Amino acid sequence: MVMTNVAVVGASGYVGGELLRLLLRHPNVRIAAVSSEQSSGKSVRSLFPNLAGPELFYEALDAAEIATRAQIIFLALPHTKSATAAATFLKAECKVIDLSADFRLKDPAAYERWYRTAHPCPEILGTAVYGLPELHRSAIRLASLVASPGCYPTAALLSLLPLTTHHLVSDLVVIDAKSGISGAGRNPAAPYHFPEANESIEAYQLGVHRHIPEIEQELGMTVSFTPHLVPMTRGILSSAYVRLREPRTSEQLTDLYREHYKAEPFVRVLNPGQSPNPRHTRGSNFCDVSAFVDPRTGMAILSAALDNLVKGAAGQAIQAMNLMQGWPETAGLGDSGLYP
Amino acid sequence: MVMTNVAVVGASGYVGGELLRLLLRHPNVRIAAVSSEQSSGKSVRSLFPNLAGPELFYEALDAAEIATRAQIIFLALPHTKSATAAATFLKAECKVIDLSADFRLKDPAAYERWYRTAHPCPEILGTAVYGLPELHRSAIRLASLVASPGCYPTAALLSLLPLTTHHLVSDLVVIDAKSGISGAGRNPAAPYHFPEANESIEAYQLGVHRHIPEIEQELGMTVSFTPHLVPMTRGILSSAYVRLREPRTSEQLTDLYREHYKAEPFVRVLNPGQSPNPRHTRGSNFCDVSAFVDPRTGMAILSAALDNLVKGAAGQAIQAMNLMQGWPETAGLGDSGLYP
Amino acid sequence: MVMTNVAVVGASGYVGGELLRLLLRHPNVRIAAVSSEQSSGKSVRSLFPNLAGPELFYEALDAAEIATRAQIIFLALPHTKSATAAATFLKAECKVIDLSADFRLKDPAAYERWYRTAHPCPEILGTAVYGLPELHRSAIRLASLVASPGCYPTAALLSLLPLTTHHLVSDLVVIDAKSGISGAGRNPAAPYHFPEANESIEAYQLGVHRHIPEIEQELGMTVSFTPHLVPMTRGILSSAYVRLREPRTSEQLTDLYREHYKAEPFVRVLNPGQSPNPRHTRGSNFCDVSAFVDPRTGMAILSAALDNLVKGAAGQAIQAMNLMQGWPETAGLGDSGLYP
Amino acid sequence: MVMTNVAVVGASGYVGGELLRLLLRHPNVRIAAVSSEQSSGKSVRSLFPNLAGPELFYEALDAAEIATRAQIIFLALPHTKSATAAATFLKAECKVIDLSADFRLKDPAAYERWYRTAHPCPEILGTAVYGLPELHRSAIRLASLVASPGCYPTAALLSLLPLTTHHLVSDLVVIDAKSGISGAGRNPAAPYHFPEANESIEAYQLGVHRHIPEIEQELGMTVSFTPHLVPMTRGILSSAYVRLREPRTSEQLTDLYREHYKAEPFVRVLNPGQSPNPRHTRGSNFCDVSAFVDPRTGMAILSAALDNLVKGAAGQAIQAMNLMQGWPETAGLGDSGLYP
Repeated sequence: MVMTNVAVVGASGYVGGELLRLLLRHPNVRIAAVSSEQSSGKSVRSLFPNLAGPELFYEALDAAEIATRAQIIFLALPHTKSATAAATFLKAECKVIDLSADFRLKDPAAYERWYRTAHPCPEILGTAVYGLPELHRSAIRLASLVASPGCYPTAALLSLLPLTTHHLVSDLVVIDAKSGISGAGRNPAAPYHFPEANESIEAYQLGVHRHIPEIEQELGMTVSFTPHLVPMTRGILSSAYVRLREPRTSEQLTDLYREHYKAEPFVRVLNPGQSPNPRHTRGSNFCDVSAFVDPRTGMAILSAALDNLVKGAAGQAIQAMNLMQGWPETAGLGDSGLYP
Repeated sequence: MVMTNVAVVGASGYVGGELLRLLLRHPNVRIAAVSSEQSSGKSVRSLFPNLAGPELFYEALDAAEIATRAQIIFLALPHTKSATAAATFLKAECKVIDLSADFRLKDPAAYERWYRTAHPCPEILGTAVYGLPELHRSAIRLASLVASPGCYPTAALLSLLPLTTHHLVSDLVVIDAKSGISGAGRNPAAPYHFPEANESIEAYQLGVHRHIPEIEQELGMTVSFTPHLVPMTRGILSSAYVRLREPRTSEQLTDLYREHYKAEPFVRVLNPGQSPNPRHTRGSNFCDVSAFVDPRTGMAILSAALDNLVKGAAGQAIQAMNLMQGWPETAGLGDSGLYP
Repeated sequence: MVMTNVAVVGASGYVGGELLRLLLRHPNVRIAAVSSEQSSGKSVRSLFPNLAGPELFYEALDAAEIATRAQIIFLALPHTKSATAAATFLKAECKVIDLSADFRLKDPAAYERWYRTAHPCPEILGTAVYGLPELHRSAIRLASLVASPGCYPTAALLSLLPLTTHHLVSDLVVIDAKSGISGAGRNPAAPYHFPEANESIEAYQLGVHRHIPEIEQELGMTVSFTPHLVPMTRGILSSAYVRLREPRTSEQLTDLYREHYKAEPFVRVLNPGQSPNPRHTRGSNFCDVSAFVDPRTGMAILSAALDNLVKGAAGQAIQAMNLMQGWPETAGLGDSGLYP
Repeated sequence: MVMTNVAVVGASGYVGGELLRLLLRHPNVRIAAVSSEQSSGKSVRSLFPNLAGPELFYEALDAAEIATRAQIIFLALPHTKSATAAATFLKAECKVIDLSADFRLKDPAAYERWYRTAHPCPEILGTAVYGLPELHRSAIRLASLVASPGCYPTAALLSLLPLTTHHLVSDLVVIDAKSGISGAGRNPAAPYHFPEANESIEAYQLGVHRHIPEIEQELGMTVSFTPHLVPMTRGILSSAYVRLREPRTSEQLTDLYREHYKAEPFVRVLNPGQSPNPRHTRGSNFCDVSAFVDPRTGMAILSAALDNLVKGAAGQAIQAMNLMQGWPETAGLGDSGLYP
C-alpha cells in the first residue's frame, strides 16, 4: 500500500507526542517530518522515550520545506502561530489539521474577545471545519482545513448534542468539568507542580476559560462552564446539568442517546445507572457518555469521559484525517484503552 | 485543670481515628474509653500507628459501663446502631455527639425513605440538634444530643447559607461535589482499590445519595446534588451553581459572605478570583469558601473546600463538644493544615 | 490469513484483562474462549469496559471443551489450579502458556518450600520452559508448556543477566524492587485501599517473597530481594546493587549491556547517566535497563523498568506465543507506551 | 510565660512554611520576623493559605535588623547564602539553626568537593554541631550554631546508628532511599511536573547526591547511597542493606534497636515483621525504624520512615532549638501524624 506522508509541526509537547504515538501505528501514513524549533536536532525519543518504531529527529523546517515532504500537516503550535502556518500550508495545497484554537471560532470578533488578539488570518477562517466528526462528518470529509476541537468541548458537546438536537434543553446549561493535569501541557508551572497538584482539586478560570465560546458556538446556546483540575495525569469528565423542556426518564434519554450515536464508532452510551469514568478510555479514542434523569428534581445529568490527549486532541485529529482522506474512520484508532 | 472524660464508641474507622488524634491534643479532655467490638483487646496504635501520646486499648464495653467512665460520648457507629446506643447514653445523662446519620433528619419518615429502615428511636429525634455551629450555635450549646453533619452537607451548606439567608437563590441549586476516597471509609472495596481509584473520577449514587435530604432540610430548598469520587485521600470540594434572584457582582457577594462569616473561627472567605482547594485545609478544621458571579451568564458559583475527616467529621464534632461544654470554641482545633 | 484460536482461562483479573487487550489487537489470533467460573455469563466488557472490538462473554467451560476450540491456552489462574489445568490441556495437545507460578521452579521441593504445598503435577514440570525470551528463546520456540516469568523476576533478571553471563558478580546481589499496586491483583484488600496505598511506600514480605527462588534459579546465585509497594497503578523499577569481580566503568558496562541485548526487540539499554522509569514503558512490552558504576565506591547499580502487566505478564506471555508459533516475535506487541 | 522571639529567614519554600506551621503552635516562642527577599510585602498566608493564627508578613530585612528582634534564627536559605548570614547572626549573639547544607560537613575540602564551591565561612565551621539529637544531643544543648541534617541522612542515620555503634557492620552499606516530591522543593521543574512525577519512579543523581558525604561523616564509613523519586508529596523511606559482622536474628537486632532508642521521644522501633511507612509519620516529628535479618542470606535490612519536611527538616530544627534552650525536647512537637 502506498503510504501518505504526514508532518507534525510543533511536536515537543504532550499533544505532539501523542500524535506521533498514534501516527506511528497508523496503517496508511508515514511520518515524513517532525518539526520543532526548540528541539531541532534532538531525537524524538529523547523527548518521548515511550515511542517505539523507527528513530525520528526533530528538524527546524520552514513551512515550504515541510510542504514538499508531506500532504497532510498536523499543527500542534500555540494559537496565532498556528493560523499563519496553516495559511502557508494551504497555499501549498496541503491538507491541514490544526490542534490549536485558531480556527475553532467562526467569528473573528469572538476570537479577538476571548484570545485578546486579532485573528491572524480571518480570510481563511470561513474555510475551516470544526473537526468533531460526530457533528460535522460530511464537512470534514471535504475540508482542507480542520480545526480540531478542544478537549473540554469534545466531552461537553458529546454529552449534550443529542439533547440540543432534539430541542430538549429548556435553559442555561451548567457544565462542571474535571480534567487531568496533562491538559495543561508539558511546561512546568506552580499549579502543576506535583506537591501542589497532588491531593488537590480546584476550579480555575471561572467564567473566562477559552473553551466556552467553542462549546456555545457548536451547541447554539449559552453555557455556564467551570473547569476543575484533578490529580490525575490523563482524562476528562464532563458533568452537565440540564433542565429538560419535557419530562423524560433515564431510560428514555438513554434510548435517545443510543439512537443518536448508533453509528458512531467512538461514542459508547452507557446503561442507565452507569457513570462514565476516564479510567476506561485511557489511551483510546473512545468517549463514554451517559444520561440520567433524577425523578425527584427532574434535573438531567449528562456525563462524558474521554482521554484528553486522544479523543480530546491527537486521536480526534487523526479521526478527522481519516475522513479527509476517505480512509476507514477508525484506521489506526481501534485500540482498547489501558485499564487499569 | 480538671479534665473531662470522653469516650469514643466505634473507633476503628477513619473518623474514629481522627477523633482520637484530635482528642489526644485537646487541652480539656481525657480519653477514658475507646470502644470497639471488632478490635477489642488490640492497642489503638495497632490500628492507628500515627497516634502519639499514651498507649490506649480498644475495649468491648457496653454502654452502661462506658457511661460510668465518661461524660461525653462520641458515637462513630454505623447508622441504626448509633441511635440505640445514643438512647442509652442519654438515659445515663451523658452528652452524646453522634457522627452517624441517625439524628440528622428531623422527619422520621424522611429517614425511613432515604435509609430504607424505620428510625430506631424516633422519640428522641426531637431533642437532637444538627451540629453545624455556623447555623445552630446557640442550640448546640444547650444540646445533650448533637447530630454531627455529614461531610458533603457541611461543605455544601457553608457555601450556600449566606445566599439562602439573604433569599438570593431563585430556583433549584445544582451542587457538584468532589470527595477524596477516605470519605468512603476504611473498608476495602472495588471502587476504592488503588488501581481503580487512581487516575479515575466518577459520579456515584446519582439522585440517591443520603446526604441530599440533610442538605435540603438545612437549606430549606430542593437541590440537585451529585457527588464524585476523586483520586485523593482527604478533602472535599463542593461547587454550587445558583441563579440569583437579584443581580450581584463577585465583589458584592464576597462582601456578603465576609459579613455573614465575620465571627466564624473556622470559615475563611477567599478573595474574589480565588478558588477554594482542600489542599489548604488538610488536617485542619477550616472551611474555605468563595463566591463568584459570572457577569456573562449571571450564574453564581459558590465553592467550599474542607477536610472531610476534620471539619467534615471529627473536628466539627469536637467543635460541637466545645460549645456544649462552654469551652472556647476553638479549643484543640486551632492548628494549621498540612501543606503541601 | 488463517487465524489461530486462543483461549484465556481465568480472565477476570488484571492479567487476564491485559491478555485480552493485547490479543484483541494481535494480527494472527482469534479469541475463541474466555473462561471464568466466577464471571460466567457476564460480558467481558462488564469487567473490562476499556476493551474495544467484538463483544465477548465469559463462559464456565471445562478444559476439554476449551481444548476443542483453541490451540493455544493462556492460563491466568491461581497457583496449583493452574498446574492441573495445564496437564489436561497438554494431553489435549494444546500449547499452554501459564502465567501462574506453577511451572517456574524446576525443583518441586523448592516449589513446596516456597508455596507451602506439594507441586500438583511434578511429572510435567520437566517439560516446562521458563518463558523469558531473552534467556531461553530457543527452548521457548520448541516448548509446549511455557512458564511465564513473574513481574519482579523479569525486571531483576533483565537488569542482571549481562553481568552474570560475563561472571562479573562477585558476591551476594542486593535487589531493591518497587512495584505499582496492580501487581497485587484486582481483589481489594487493606494495603491496596486507596487511602492506605496513596502517599505511602512500604517494603513487604521481607525474605519470603515467592519471586526470590525464581530469580535465584535463573541467575544461578543467591540474591537478597526486597519488594516495595509504591503509589502508582502500573510499573516496576528494580534496582540491583552489585560488587563487580573486576573494575568496570559505567561506559564499559553500558557497552557490555548494549552488546548483550543488541538483537533484543524489547530491551532498551539507556545511555550512561539515564535512569529507567516505568513511566516510559506503560502499556508496552519494553523493558528499559541501565548500568552505572560509582567510581567512588566501585558499586555497580543495575536498573530495569517495565510495565508489570505487559512485559511483566501478559505481553511477555504473548511474546512467548509468537516464538512457539514461529511468528515474528514482535507480532501484536510493537506499540509505543503511553506517556504521559 | 515569657515567649522567646524567633525569626525565619528565607521562608517562602516548603521547609520555611513547615517551620512557620510548627512554630505557630510552639508554646515557648513568638515569630518575630519572617524574612524573604522575593516575597517581601506579601502576607505569609498568600504563600501558605493553610496557616492558622495571627497574620504575618514577609519582610526584606537585613541580618542586623533581624538580630534586634529575635534571639533564635532559623535559616532556610540556599547553601552558601546561609553560611554568610549565619556568621552575621552569630556575631550578633543570636543562636542559629541552619537548615541548609553549609555547616553539615566538618571538612571544608569535602564541602568544596561536593558543592563545587569554596566554603564561604570555614572559620566558624568548627563551632557548628550536626543537629541530629539522637547522636549529638549534649553538643546541641551547648551549641550556638546547629547544622540541621538533611532529610535523607536523618532517615539513613537513624536506621543504621545502632548497628555502627555496636560495630556490627562488616563492609560497604547499600542504602536505597525513596522520597516524596516535596523534598525537591517548591520550584516547578520538569521532573516534578505532575504528569511526569505521577505514575513514575526513578533513581537520580547516582553516586553524586550531596547527602552522601553527610551520611558517611556521621556513620564513619563509606556508603553506596541511591535516592529515588516516588509519586507522593511527603515522606522518605530509607532501606539499608548490610552484612553483619556477627550473626543476629531479627529479634536480637530489634532488641538492640529498642535498647539504643529507649529514651528517644521521636524514634519508634517497630516489631519484627513490621515495615516502616511514611504514611504513619505524615506531619509529625516521628521516625519509625525496623530491623530485619533474612535467615536465608544473613543480610540485615534496616529501614526508616519519616516526614521529610518535619523530622527531615523543620521539626528536627525545632527539636534542636528545644535542646539549645533547655526546654522540653518535645515542646511543640508532640502531635500525632495525619493518617490516612
